[in-house]
Amino acid sequence: MAWLGQPVLIEELLFKTQHGIVDQALHARMGAEPTNGDGFGIGWYGTGKGPAVYRSVAPAWGDANLRDLAAHVESPLFLVHVRAAIGSPVQQTNCHPFRHGSWLFVHNGYIGGFRQMRRDLMLAVDPDLFGDFLGSTDTEVVFALALTYGLQHDPIDALAATVGLIESTARRHGVRDAVQGTFCCSDGESLWAVRYATTGPARSLFASVDADSIRRLHPDNPRLQQLHPEDRVVVSEPFSDLPGVWHEIPESSAVTVGRGGLFEQRRFEPAGVVA
Amino acid sequence: MAWLGQPVLIEELLFKTQHGIVDQALHARMGAEPTNGDGFGIGWYGTGKGPAVYRSVAPAWGDANLRDLAAHVESPLFLVHVRAAIGSPVQQTNCHPFRHGSWLFVHNGYIGGFRQMRRDLMLAVDPDLFGDFLGSTDTEVVFALALTYGLQHDPIDALAATVGLIESTARRHGVRDAVQGTFCCSDGESLWAVRYATTGPARSLFASVDADSIRRLHPDNPRLQQLHPEDRVVVSEPFSDLPGVWHEIPESSAVTVGRGGLFEQRRFEPAGVVA
Amino acid sequence: MAWLGQPVLIEELLFKTQHGIVDQALHARMGAEPTNGDGFGIGWYGTGKGPAVYRSVAPAWGDANLRDLAAHVESPLFLVHVRAAIGSPVQQTNCHPFRHGSWLFVHNGYIGGFRQMRRDLMLAVDPDLFGDFLGSTDTEVVFALALTYGLQHDPIDALAATVGLIESTARRHGVRDAVQGTFCCSDGESLWAVRYATTGPARSLFASVDADSIRRLHPDNPRLQQLHPEDRVVVSEPFSDLPGVWHEIPESSAVTVGRGGLFEQRRFEPAGVVA
Amino acid sequence: MAWLGQPVLIEELLFKTQHGIVDQALHARMGAEPTNGDGFGIGWYGTGKGPAVYRSVAPAWGDANLRDLAAHVESPLFLVHVRAAIGSPVQQTNCHPFRHGSWLFVHNGYIGGFRQMRRDLMLAVDPDLFGDFLGSTDTEVVFALALTYGLQHDPIDALAATVGLIESTARRHGVRDAVQGTFCCSDGESLWAVRYATTGPARSLFASVDADSIRRLHPDNPRLQQLHPEDRVVVSEPFSDLPGVWHEIPESSAVTVGRGGLFEQRRFEPAGVVA
Repeated sequence: MAWLGQPVLIEELLFKTQHGIVDQALHARMGAEPTNGDGFGIGWYGTGKGPAVYRSVAPAWGDANLRDLAAHVESPLFLVHVRAAIGSPVQQTNCHPFRHGSWLFVHNGYIGGFRQMRRDLMLAVDPDLFGDFLGSTDTEVVFALALTYGLQHDPIDALAATVGLIESTARRHGVRDAVQGTFCCSDGESLWAVRYATTGPARSLFASVDADSIRRLHPDNPRLQQLHPEDRVVVSEPFSDLPGVWHEIPESSAVTVGRGGLFEQRRFEPAGVVA
Repeated sequence: MAWLGQPVLIEELLFKTQHGIVDQALHARMGAEPTNGDGFGIGWYGTGKGPAVYRSVAPAWGDANLRDLAAHVESPLFLVHVRAAIGSPVQQTNCHPFRHGSWLFVHNGYIGGFRQMRRDLMLAVDPDLFGDFLGSTDTEVVFALALTYGLQHDPIDALAATVGLIESTARRHGVRDAVQGTFCCSDGESLWAVRYATTGPARSLFASVDADSIRRLHPDNPRLQQLHPEDRVVVSEPFSDLPGVWHEIPESSAVTVGRGGLFEQRRFEPAGVVA
Repeated sequence: MAWLGQPVLIEELLFKTQHGIVDQALHARMGAEPTNGDGFGIGWYGTGKGPAVYRSVAPAWGDANLRDLAAHVESPLFLVHVRAAIGSPVQQTNCHPFRHGSWLFVHNGYIGGFRQMRRDLMLAVDPDLFGDFLGSTDTEVVFALALTYGLQHDPIDALAATVGLIESTARRHGVRDAVQGTFCCSDGESLWAVRYATTGPARSLFASVDADSIRRLHPDNPRLQQLHPEDRVVVSEPFSDLPGVWHEIPESSAVTVGRGGLFEQRRFEPAGVVA
Repeated sequence: MAWLGQPVLIEELLFKTQHGIVDQALHARMGAEPTNGDGFGIGWYGTGKGPAVYRSVAPAWGDANLRDLAAHVESPLFLVHVRAAIGSPVQQTNCHPFRHGSWLFVHNGYIGGFRQMRRDLMLAVDPDLFGDFLGSTDTEVVFALALTYGLQHDPIDALAATVGLIESTARRHGVRDAVQGTFCCSDGESLWAVRYATTGPARSLFASVDADSIRRLHPDNPRLQQLHPEDRVVVSEPFSDLPGVWHEIPESSAVTVGRGGLFEQRRFEPAGVVA
């Protein structure tokens, strides 16, 4: 889940929203995992230098500190992730978001056959970044690869190259269905998100449609009336069933979300896949 | 979940059983809470003096230490509890089982209106026990009351007096539906369990029927063929759907499970309720 | 440790100060406990309603989230506490600061004979507050007593009555040396601190002297030159050995620290002690 | 700390010994780090298949579960480690002992320049083991290298090759003082320990001398009188100051401790160092 828009108390979206992400941690409806109780993380931009990250191995629904932080931190851009561990240990360093300089990165999904491809993938990481690994998830490696391929210059292209490398490596190892999920990153100014799976369907991804339309569609909803024109939410699973509020990002797509309501969507495909 | 019988590696019942309690922590079918991820505890009798207790605030399904302990600790009598926190904090001292001397105690359910009755209930606890409170659950108070009313001499009578006191206190405070749940305790030799709710239905409670019957009913199930005549499992929710394996304890009942296959069931009702 | 003054990033005092409180957690020089590794807490006023609290059972020196929060949260008034558990469990609900409405409360020290006096002390707490206990420390009870005796109207008088009750209770139970420590509380506008021990010496307590004097005494220290006239730090143990920076609060004293450099010190003695 | 001998309750050595390792976690006298509060681990052989491991990020002195386990688990061979994190995160997967099949491994010390050498060292690990990394310590890599070099066939030779590789890598990277510490491993039958530093002095290492001598030296010490002839303790720091009880392992030495009081000591030097 990601927010880009007017500064809001994080709790507005985390706890005061119907079927928000903390509620989804207990009862996801669309994810492959109905329970996401293996830790969580939140990264935000605001006061201080670069993004802040708070990560915990506790389930999001029971973490007293999260409620306090969410009620006392205001941010114009933040990412929240709840985790269902698939194979790797429950530890803070395996919780998303991952951070590098001013960048944050989250992944909802998995890299199939990661155990066998791990060495090859880590070898492809910029050696200067190799010493920074703190945990043992596939996502930390994906992020390091994306940084290696220029995430800080062109996030979508870097993710295309990263996914391409993973697909090539998977073919070499005989791994099928190597990539599954949605990826999202930010530099504090914009958000980039990708929805992709080697073999579909990919994990779901939605963006709120432009705020004006939402306000017109729901004149009687006070919360939606407070939306600014440039506010945008990107989520794995819609908060509510309100018609017209959510736009589903198609599979094999990348979106760029920016200030002023900017929303660009384009086709995403892995780059440089070697058969 | 409780086991009394031949010494077994705890993992036999915790992880190697279809729809065992750790699986139930993620996907309970009968409990009021489908997810029980707010910590867990295990208490066992065996090597060393008195019962051992291992409690953790992590969800049972993700706790690496639990898997190791379960694979390396053998016990003829143990209790396991997975928790869905209802109001009180997620902390080890709020996890079951609670212990006093050689006694262990677990509760699946809640005391309604506990916040308002708490002072009166704690005042009724033996002052010598008052200094021992470590956490803030209703169950720790229930256990202290039961100890006050003679749990160590007659567990069922002590629970009847305890439940009676709670019902009386509830009436004074205008609390309805004060008691909900199943209670189970052990001294290392026997198990006692109670199923009761002020207003039904009470949380479910099952005991395995005698091992001989189970073996005859399922001649082709190798795991069930290993059951000894005196083995007995008591659970909130059956592990499997095998017909004939589980006996449902009726509401308002108390059972005593002892060595040699002893199984006694009688009616349970609160004692000394003041209208 | 408490700060009242211009808004600062919390890390300025927590991590960027020579011999700051996190360093003291590992190597206290003056406290009775050289290591304070049994959790910590931080409470601050700023964005959002009322004070925020972040508490953790990890040692302060190793908590990654604390470093991030401190680097990204700015506050004009905050309290930090590192804990050396004396008898009660290491759990978040036993970590300071404790909170009630807009009030925060910390205690550096202990109540002697707490186990035996606990029931009597808790009985003296306003019954409306009794249901709120979440942990099992002496300090949570002291705070509840102070609230009972009017902390929100006159903090020092309420602490005098609280300490008086504890001293009376101690005499009844034959407990010697019942009260030891420093107490500090805030409503978000002012700070109140008390240094007192039944039998001295009491735990140490220091306040920074007025900022003007500090700047004049240390013309070459850039950090101290940035102090505003109204900035004030209250600590258990001085950060640095710089002469003239710290004023030791005498034993049996209470101080009030307010906006605009307000600093009042008066004698503190327990009220209403019954022999 | 390691024990090989008659089966004992682990608490005998962990908590009931003067200046035992848990006490050393708070107040080490000989280690480079006076406080070792960044988690701990214990590995033991006994009931169940292979070694059990219990690891926690809590300081050893405050972990309630550790006290319970130690009081209820009996073992003829166990290793205990308390950690002072040097750079890598405080997480269970960074706590020792590390395990592979029936082997346990602990390290007291560090690999200097690990961040820059990490990639080269990990590349030298058997690719089949590469997928198993769960944490981010130098020790997990050292263990994987030792397994690569045949730890399971000849532990001392494998450690000599491992240390040799690290020394060679260090020279290539311009790292000085690359290896510091003591290493200890076990297969459940014997213990092997190495004391070595690129540039001394190496972290200290002691073994209890033969039990007969100890009993004769201290006829009035009941605990020491219970020692069996084949009991042996290996420690970083002696538990007590009793003269004649402890034999200091010299620097650049390797020892083998086996059943029946076997104790062999030989010179240890890195193998295959490339200048």
